[in-house]
Amino acid sequence: MSTLVIVRHGQSEGNARGEFTGTSDVPLTQEGWSESRRAGSLLANLGISFDIAFSSALLRTVDTCRAILNETNGDLLEPIRRTELNERDYGQLTGINKNVARERWGQDVVQVWRRSYSTPPPGGESIRDISARVLPFLISEVFPPLLRGKSVLVVAHGNTIRSLKQGIERLTIQDTLAIESPTAAPTVYRIASDLSIIEKTNVLVGTVC
Amino acid sequence: MSTLVIVRHGQSEGNARGEFTGTSDVPLTQEGWSESRRAGSLLANLGISFDIAFSSALLRTVDTCRAILNETNGDLLEPIRRTELNERDYGQLTGINKNVARERWGQDVVQVWRRSYSTPPPGGESIRDISARVLPFLISEVFPPLLRGKSVLVVAHGNTIRSLKQGIERLTIQDTLAIESPTAAPTVYRIASDLSIIEKTNVLVGTVC
Repeated sequence: MSTLVIVRHGQSEGNARGEFTGTSDVPLTQEGWSESRRAGSLLANLGISFDIAFSSALLRTVDTCRAILNETNGDLLEPIRRTELNERDYGQLTGINKNVARERWGQDVVQVWRRSYSTPPPGGESIRDISARVLPFLISEVFPPLLRGKSVLVVAHGNTIRSLKQGIERLTIQDTLAIESPTAAPTVYRIASDLSIIEKTNVLVGTVC
Repeated sequence: MSTLVIVRHGQSEGNARGEFTGTSDVPLTQEGWSESRRAGSLLANLGISFDIAFSSALLRTVDTCRAILNETNGDLLEPIRRTELNERDYGQLTGINKNVARERWGQDVVQVWRRSYSTPPPGGESIRDISARVLPFLISEVFPPLLRGKSVLVVAHGNTIRSLKQGIERLTIQDTLAIESPTAAPTVYRIASDLSIIEKTNVLVGTVC
């Protein structure tokens, strides 16, 4: 049995401003830092430490990952940064406040861009496009250590976590689209040798991922 | 160790006419039938039989799969049909002869549609779109039996085999785009318990997949 922990970065400045943060490399807020440390101590209290850790190439996941590892591994592990895990490219929506976007393009249009499977925002990526870059990463870099009994941490973004969970939980497209990830709320999977899920726990009681 | 065999369907009538067959459900030619049987006997001569077999929902893969299983399993196994394995939707190119298409849209444009990663033909799918539907199938339906030591046969199409091999061989996008699959030419993988490839054999000597 191996352990896989998937967690979204702590609150970023883009989140605090209610923006489509996307590829812009904004830092964590103070709240984001403290909830990242809390996530780490919760995992440490469960006796979890990691053999390997991945983040995206964006600062908010690198910092969250370090804050967690500081609690679980005592600074002895550095996140491996993968661009495949970078947040969705929101194209023209990037950096725009979500309410402003709804006023400009209309609630329904923005909702289609946000949560349909194959329609991207103008100049951006669809959720399908994200699955096409995240699933090869999951296959090539996460499954092998899990199959060797290792403990793996992946800190990513709301959209890339959606595709990660599509692969880990073998979800339909409909179920994949419905996934929402609160900031710094770890999901802990206990994984069997055939990659099936023995147990799935949302460490922050009361959060459904 | 488990065995995974990936093979493209035998020659179809669309192939014989040099068309972008795509989603049109054309049958095998006589040549397609005989090379499918030959693929089966080659695999049988290697002592290979299958615990589970998949084809797309299109006739040319179902018939090829049955012809192979007849040789390896003596008709005791029926292919499980998966639409995720269906050939690429070529949109406006579907059913058009490749030379006619080149004259109509130009050699370079057609080549971009055929072999770029994210640009689809008008109304069709890109190779990225195909990976987004094939990789979840690979994760959910092929990896589990392999990880339980089973022998798996997958009969698919030129484009869906490209995405299957992207996942199985953990290929870069560039290497994925370069994959070509001759008809009814099996690739045999011996797979370790961490899904790494112990051995890869192109059963038809001289064919490179």
